[in-house]
Amino acid sequence: MAEQGTADTSSSTKATTKAVLVDAGTRLILEQGYHQTGIQDVLQAAGVPKGSFYYYFPSKEAFGLAVIAQFAAAYLARLEQHLGDTTASPLTRLRRHQEDLLARFERRGCRGGCLIGNLSQELADHNPRVQAQLDAVLTSWRERYAQLFREAQAVGELRADRDPQALADFYLDSFEGALLHAKVSKSPAPLRLFLTCMFDGVLQGRPAGA
Amino acid sequence: MAEQGTADTSSSTKATTKAVLVDAGTRLILEQGYHQTGIQDVLQAAGVPKGSFYYYFPSKEAFGLAVIAQFAAAYLARLEQHLGDTTASPLTRLRRHQEDLLARFERRGCRGGCLIGNLSQELADHNPRVQAQLDAVLTSWRERYAQLFREAQAVGELRADRDPQALADFYLDSFEGALLHAKVSKSPAPLRLFLTCMFDGVLQGRPAGA
Repeated sequence: MAEQGTADTSSSTKATTKAVLVDAGTRLILEQGYHQTGIQDVLQAAGVPKGSFYYYFPSKEAFGLAVIAQFAAAYLARLEQHLGDTTASPLTRLRRHQEDLLARFERRGCRGGCLIGNLSQELADHNPRVQAQLDAVLTSWRERYAQLFREAQAVGELRADRDPQALADFYLDSFEGALLHAKVSKSPAPLRLFLTCMFDGVLQGRPAGA
Repeated sequence: MAEQGTADTSSSTKATTKAVLVDAGTRLILEQGYHQTGIQDVLQAAGVPKGSFYYYFPSKEAFGLAVIAQFAAAYLARLEQHLGDTTASPLTRLRRHQEDLLARFERRGCRGGCLIGNLSQELADHNPRVQAQLDAVLTSWRERYAQLFREAQAVGELRADRDPQALADFYLDSFEGALLHAKVSKSPAPLRLFLTCMFDGVLQGRPAGA
């Protein structure tokens, strides 16, 4: 490509430009979806010269996969910040994590939601590579929740007869559904209800919605 | 518009053509999303002459609202078929309805999902009119579930100390989340888990995931 020669090829600048593109792409895709986000929009938002996109990514799909990988890693890091804080009990850590997510979502005006959930909706039926990566990301998150539920069982905070993996699957699925409802109703109420049903009901082995 | 004169203006043909367009639009939007579905795609799929779209709909948005309204009404009718069958107990009716949805989703190869959930994800942040209609549709479905839960309480199938509306909200949100997981994992397992957690756990006042 004619524009390749204009890109700075020093490895640190290359890495920085790539990261700037992924950051801009993450914001745009979260805001308007994958199909609605054009490569030119990303370059413009990132302030990167027109035409240099393919110097960094072989295709829009490769770019999408990079956005997913970075979002997934950032989410796991934030999750770990709360769930790895062993000064609090396992379920207290999980609740703090959820309250943090809820506060962030509310500050953004109940917009956007979960990039991984959004892309699952948009692309799972159309792009097998992206679908497989999204599935793997969600599986890794659920495994982290299951690990926390096993910790909760070890300290007697969760009944020993529950299946931690099934509980983690149900927990994350219900959360994604509550987030979708919060986004369409433009209200954090569904997420508050999710917290109440899970923490005062399901996880306690008590009736939800009581 | 030049093409208006070519459309048959007898009221029954007009109503039929409009319905054919809405049917084609529903299939296409469920398959590929709202933004990815062009007006020309709809006309072609419906076998309706090019250019006659605006004779039936003032805008793509108006067409989208018609698609939503028809899908919502069709879903409520199917819901009523099961939930209104008073020869079975309320929770048995609900379970039959869910098993029916699951079987249909599996027959479609775990593709598509819920048109209302999909459009909520895609459009809730961008189009206030569509967002308000989607929110109203989901509210009407939740109200129907709440009514069923009140019936279940009246016959002693559900504890009287549960809040039927909160339970209905949590139920439908969790279902939408499980459907999303089923779509991205291309497996009905998340929907089976949802059924187990709800019918053997949450709705019984017993631990989910046990």
